[in-house]
Amino acid sequence: MSSKNIVVEQLQQQLIETHSVEFVERKGLGHPDYIADSLSEELSLELCKEYKKRFGIILHHNVDKVLLVGGHSLPAFGGGEILSPIYIVMSGRATNEVNINGKWESIPVGRLAIESAKGWIKNNLRYLDTERHLIVDHKIGKGSMDLICNFDYKSGKACSNDTSFGVGYAPWDTLEKLVYDTERFVNSKHIRKNLPEVGEDVKVMGLRSGKEIKLTIAAAMISKLIPDMSHYLSVKSDLKNAIEDHVTKKCEMPVEVYLNNADMLDQEIVYITVTGTSAEMGDDGETGRGNRSNGLITPQRPMSLEAAAGKNPVSHVGKIYNVMAQLIANKIAELKGVDEAYVKIVSQIGRPIDDPHMANIQLVLENGASLTTQLNGEINGIVNSEFDNVGRVTDLILEKKVTLF
Amino acid sequence: MSSKNIVVEQLQQQLIETHSVEFVERKGLGHPDYIADSLSEELSLELCKEYKKRFGIILHHNVDKVLLVGGHSLPAFGGGEILSPIYIVMSGRATNEVNINGKWESIPVGRLAIESAKGWIKNNLRYLDTERHLIVDHKIGKGSMDLICNFDYKSGKACSNDTSFGVGYAPWDTLEKLVYDTERFVNSKHIRKNLPEVGEDVKVMGLRSGKEIKLTIAAAMISKLIPDMSHYLSVKSDLKNAIEDHVTKKCEMPVEVYLNNADMLDQEIVYITVTGTSAEMGDDGETGRGNRSNGLITPQRPMSLEAAAGKNPVSHVGKIYNVMAQLIANKIAELKGVDEAYVKIVSQIGRPIDDPHMANIQLVLENGASLTTQLNGEINGIVNSEFDNVGRVTDLILEKKVTLF
Amino acid sequence: MSSKNIVVEQLQQQLIETHSVEFVERKGLGHPDYIADSLSEELSLELCKEYKKRFGIILHHNVDKVLLVGGHSLPAFGGGEILSPIYIVMSGRATNEVNINGKWESIPVGRLAIESAKGWIKNNLRYLDTERHLIVDHKIGKGSMDLICNFDYKSGKACSNDTSFGVGYAPWDTLEKLVYDTERFVNSKHIRKNLPEVGEDVKVMGLRSGKEIKLTIAAAMISKLIPDMSHYLSVKSDLKNAIEDHVTKKCEMPVEVYLNNADMLDQEIVYITVTGTSAEMGDDGETGRGNRSNGLITPQRPMSLEAAAGKNPVSHVGKIYNVMAQLIANKIAELKGVDEAYVKIVSQIGRPIDDPHMANIQLVLENGASLTTQLNGEINGIVNSEFDNVGRVTDLILEKKVTLF
Amino acid sequence: MSSKNIVVEQLQQQLIETHSVEFVERKGLGHPDYIADSLSEELSLELCKEYKKRFGIILHHNVDKVLLVGGHSLPAFGGGEILSPIYIVMSGRATNEVNINGKWESIPVGRLAIESAKGWIKNNLRYLDTERHLIVDHKIGKGSMDLICNFDYKSGKACSNDTSFGVGYAPWDTLEKLVYDTERFVNSKHIRKNLPEVGEDVKVMGLRSGKEIKLTIAAAMISKLIPDMSHYLSVKSDLKNAIEDHVTKKCEMPVEVYLNNADMLDQEIVYITVTGTSAEMGDDGETGRGNRSNGLITPQRPMSLEAAAGKNPVSHVGKIYNVMAQLIANKIAELKGVDEAYVKIVSQIGRPIDDPHMANIQLVLENGASLTTQLNGEINGIVNSEFDNVGRVTDLILEKKVTLF
Repeated sequence: MSSKNIVVEQLQQQLIETHSVEFVERKGLGHPDYIADSLSEELSLELCKEYKKRFGIILHHNVDKVLLVGGHSLPAFGGGEILSPIYIVMSGRATNEVNINGKWESIPVGRLAIESAKGWIKNNLRYLDTERHLIVDHKIGKGSMDLICNFDYKSGKACSNDTSFGVGYAPWDTLEKLVYDTERFVNSKHIRKNLPEVGEDVKVMGLRSGKEIKLTIAAAMISKLIPDMSHYLSVKSDLKNAIEDHVTKKCEMPVEVYLNNADMLDQEIVYITVTGTSAEMGDDGETGRGNRSNGLITPQRPMSLEAAAGKNPVSHVGKIYNVMAQLIANKIAELKGVDEAYVKIVSQIGRPIDDPHMANIQLVLENGASLTTQLNGEINGIVNSEFDNVGRVTDLILEKKVTLF
Repeated sequence: MSSKNIVVEQLQQQLIETHSVEFVERKGLGHPDYIADSLSEELSLELCKEYKKRFGIILHHNVDKVLLVGGHSLPAFGGGEILSPIYIVMSGRATNEVNINGKWESIPVGRLAIESAKGWIKNNLRYLDTERHLIVDHKIGKGSMDLICNFDYKSGKACSNDTSFGVGYAPWDTLEKLVYDTERFVNSKHIRKNLPEVGEDVKVMGLRSGKEIKLTIAAAMISKLIPDMSHYLSVKSDLKNAIEDHVTKKCEMPVEVYLNNADMLDQEIVYITVTGTSAEMGDDGETGRGNRSNGLITPQRPMSLEAAAGKNPVSHVGKIYNVMAQLIANKIAELKGVDEAYVKIVSQIGRPIDDPHMANIQLVLENGASLTTQLNGEINGIVNSEFDNVGRVTDLILEKKVTLF
Repeated sequence: MSSKNIVVEQLQQQLIETHSVEFVERKGLGHPDYIADSLSEELSLELCKEYKKRFGIILHHNVDKVLLVGGHSLPAFGGGEILSPIYIVMSGRATNEVNINGKWESIPVGRLAIESAKGWIKNNLRYLDTERHLIVDHKIGKGSMDLICNFDYKSGKACSNDTSFGVGYAPWDTLEKLVYDTERFVNSKHIRKNLPEVGEDVKVMGLRSGKEIKLTIAAAMISKLIPDMSHYLSVKSDLKNAIEDHVTKKCEMPVEVYLNNADMLDQEIVYITVTGTSAEMGDDGETGRGNRSNGLITPQRPMSLEAAAGKNPVSHVGKIYNVMAQLIANKIAELKGVDEAYVKIVSQIGRPIDDPHMANIQLVLENGASLTTQLNGEINGIVNSEFDNVGRVTDLILEKKVTLF
Repeated sequence: MSSKNIVVEQLQQQLIETHSVEFVERKGLGHPDYIADSLSEELSLELCKEYKKRFGIILHHNVDKVLLVGGHSLPAFGGGEILSPIYIVMSGRATNEVNINGKWESIPVGRLAIESAKGWIKNNLRYLDTERHLIVDHKIGKGSMDLICNFDYKSGKACSNDTSFGVGYAPWDTLEKLVYDTERFVNSKHIRKNLPEVGEDVKVMGLRSGKEIKLTIAAAMISKLIPDMSHYLSVKSDLKNAIEDHVTKKCEMPVEVYLNNADMLDQEIVYITVTGTSAEMGDDGETGRGNRSNGLITPQRPMSLEAAAGKNPVSHVGKIYNVMAQLIANKIAELKGVDEAYVKIVSQIGRPIDDPHMANIQLVLENGASLTTQLNGEINGIVNSEFDNVGRVTDLILEKKVTLF
């Protein structure tokens, strides 16, 4: 309800879509980096739930450092086996002891770490057996006391834990929508039902050159469900066709689809896996190394290097301000005359989370338009109002209503 | 000496320096993410040396996944102690057995992993005792056979190991230069000699607002060298003055310096450490989570998400193309009429490394200028010539002549 | 079928039962050391199965080094929870790659390690949830080549892998039978059905003083099944009564039973656990630290320090000779006139397993009897015949027909 | 100065030396199990020192679970290298936080674990480089509260932490003395100086058959110091001669010495190592798996299965009573008429450490002698007096004046 440090400006620049070349990438559900992000975030959510249940508030934690070390496997048509399990170490810090009126209460951080990790995998990776293909270890330390101080327990109002920033933009352009949508399509119920052979590890790289798009897709196949090479080729062809049909409906530009392009049929090298993820064959993953908080990797757009996954959603600006910047950008992009909106928010350590050090709004306006006082006012209104309800970001995260990676 | 797929275009957009707000960050020498990057890269360099010594060529490896789990410490004026050591796990993959004429030769990957890690720390972090404050473990698997195939041993010409991209730009603007330079100054021999109390973990966040710059610097101090609070305050004040003097000489814009802004003197909370890095107190680090391959984090510039550190410098486009894009951008930016050059290079898996899928050059030209045939030709010449000498990138990396993080 | 190096002698000494004092101990099913032994042995058995399935023979392995690091728990009447999981690291060595006609075949040692461990726990510890309460890691190296040479593949006849010895004796005396039997009774189906609250971690210490026996028994109770203190006391009393009834039937000497003697009711300290094993609360375990290969710890009897669990049953004399010594002692003890038989067998590295360096048989004979030529001949016959069928020991182990710990 | 529960009895049995066959083993300084025992004990000693320095008393700890996982090496004449380091995990429990007048003080358990381990190795294994050949990790939990209660802080008098027993005997016979002495000789300064090629990993197995002794000795050689096979053979021959000379002086029975009997010269298989310990080549070790608390493995003598190493020397009967039993046996064996003395001491959990549940003394007396009232009285005096000074055992352990393994 106070007025924030807001700087709004008009940028004189071309829309991204008018650049001759554009790259966009998305690492999908079963990609090792996506798994690492997911496990960080799941543990954070479990901790939030546990803290709230026990103490009514969310205590300090930051578990944004999961390392997945790839296993060793021998996929084979009609079967295959895991030789050495995938190894995952959950790391970071979380408050594990709370002093309430002189009595110490313990929080089962270690157990939650392994439980939440296995829970996510069970729910998302059909063929990765958490008992037989996986080791989940943890190295999670106690939260340090001065970070804990960042919570103002009386007001429930948190302070920034760091000097950091969040960025967001809107709207997505054609390629961005297409790349995101394609991965979601390959991992959709529809494909799962009709082509169960398609595993969860899907990576989509999109390249727009002028008005033409090339999608390079790597999709791990489940060896057990594929009796032989001809079945593999048929699944690959069916999936390619399904994707082509789908993108044709979604996208007006011509799209070429390349699927499992590293296959070398003459050497019988094809992309089959026992578990549906390349993590079984030595591909490692780490939290924060995959998609940005909007779900994409977009070199031509502003990006934050912060991992949103695993950070606590109350005081960690690396998480909250990235989500916030996206929400604000979405609203501003809907304002009349705004073609593209870029939002950057910077925090200052110790400052209340609802009072950013600066919020910078950059606009690419419709041809010939300029930043009017009215538009400026609307934007200031949006920003102020979002920050006055900063707690809503926490809620959206807890309810899994926002994309984080 | 063939012609590559090169797309050159002129961008109609403002220079970054005309934006009202700009953020730049650099994580310095002793930051946990910087340590992780360094250990990945050191191991890669050691492996390269070992492979070349034994086999004359560099074999496949990718050790771009180091996890550093923070320790537990009790810093105190005039002393302090480490309660629990920092734990580092070196991970990734490397060829560890080579079949030469039917005889297997073993490469000491495990030993090199711990040796190289400790070696770097000894050389760079004065107060982190590798025997007493540190556990270095490793989980490095064997290279998989089809990746090994990417090397064409006869021609010595490597193929792209992945579909990925590299980005680069030039020149740096005022804020970028200032942030980079400030960290280098705080970690310079000059400061080390005059203010040995200043530790290696230095993080610099720069914010430009219009024509004014604020630098927020966190610099860990060495508790053993600081007998009491008044000494701390004096070192802090001396360092702040030295930085202010330095930046005044380097930068024409007014610069405000904030040093260790989270100190709360009334509660005696100051930024002292036993070892000079926050890793001792629970701050974790991971390869690829810190600076981009030019040494900075720059949300308003194109960035690649690939970690350059730890990848092999022969076939890993995530490393080579990031360096290459930077080298090309530097050369193009020197051409007459070019104000800003942005370079993106995309690979295709299996394609020779000197033949990128596409190289996209975007130019912001001087006021009123446009992309002439001659300029286009010069740029094509630069790009073609750099790719014809792609091996030079490998050499520069091996000789540590390029920044990678 | 050759004659072995056998030394038979008569000992002039009292029967153990005539000593005034005797101690015997047995660590039961859920004891951390028993778990470690079990996991070593289960993995060995799984490896044997896998090797035989793939290659027709059992290949070299030695996985007799499992470490169990206790967890952290908060047992509570009617519930309780695990705060930090139990951590188990399976270690040792096993052949994981076999060259067959120039092609390498991989054995899934890592996966078998975690699978077999969890399998045993699932089948034996009702309340230890392998998904939520446990981390199973492994550090199993490759078998070294010269040890592999100890198998003579053509004849199928193995050679001793080490200079080591095995010991055995028979018959058991009253206290030994009682201690063993008591643990088996507490972990019997009968008790499981009637007193499901009694957990698997049962330790029995027997002390005979003259003709009186004291059994000190520690039995972990399952907190979830015990709503309150009065229920605990009732279960404890029921179990004590059941044990007393049982031992009265089995044993002619008077037996006093002490159950959970460390309980301090005034401080509400009782022996309850979430999982039925003290491993949840910080008690560690290691292979080879619990019962000897006959299932008991008997300081007044000859004992071997070798861990039988986890060693391969084809060439590891530390396992085979301990079982063999026991089998021979059992047979000799049945000969007329023999009161106690003690058997020691020593190997020499590289010597065929069926040709021991020496077998020493010591006899305590019936009052007034002496070692006749006939008795000597019978004993030589037994020893020779057992060694001629040394493969039977391997079979008994593979069929789980002998006690190993 | 109360009277203890002491049972003294005369045994009618032959002296061990009259048995026709006898085995004795000693695992020497560099053996993996000896290393594990040493690291457990060193950490315990460091903890004792730290606790006493800070709090004036020794706090609860039990670190008797060290696991050493063997490395991977390529020894070669004149050099050789470590491919993968030895991995050691220090485990157990130790009090790491102490509440003093409402303020918590932290003890650097983790750091002491790795420091003490490396310190011991540096001082004892000349060629094992703690920086390059070794990973020392730790998994040491907090001491549980009810065990901590076993210390009666006011009186300084501890109570038994467990129901357990200790055993001891005296005197050693010829073979026992010879085996112990031979290992000590091979690891003596004399040999170190004259034959520096001899590594620290020495295992001695003694077999007495009638009046003849065979010593089978395995001694790792240092590959770097041995340029070729002929040098190896010369060192082996010199060492064998030196041992033969030495044992001839020490022992009246004829002794045959077998050194490195597994060498197969035709296949160039000899016992050389880079570091002087077989731990480098995959031999694992665990605390408590090697020598008993008198330094030997003696199957024909009473043995305790407890690991003395790593237990706290104030309340852990598994350590204290084993030492105590040995001390008492030594004194009794010197009494006139006593040929062999066997001592067993059993504790009861919660009972003061100076008041054992029972001390059982068994005597083999000189031919024709019997247990007189006077002898009985002298023995009772010895036992009572030793227990009245039970604190001396703690001191002897802290001063490293007793053998523990």
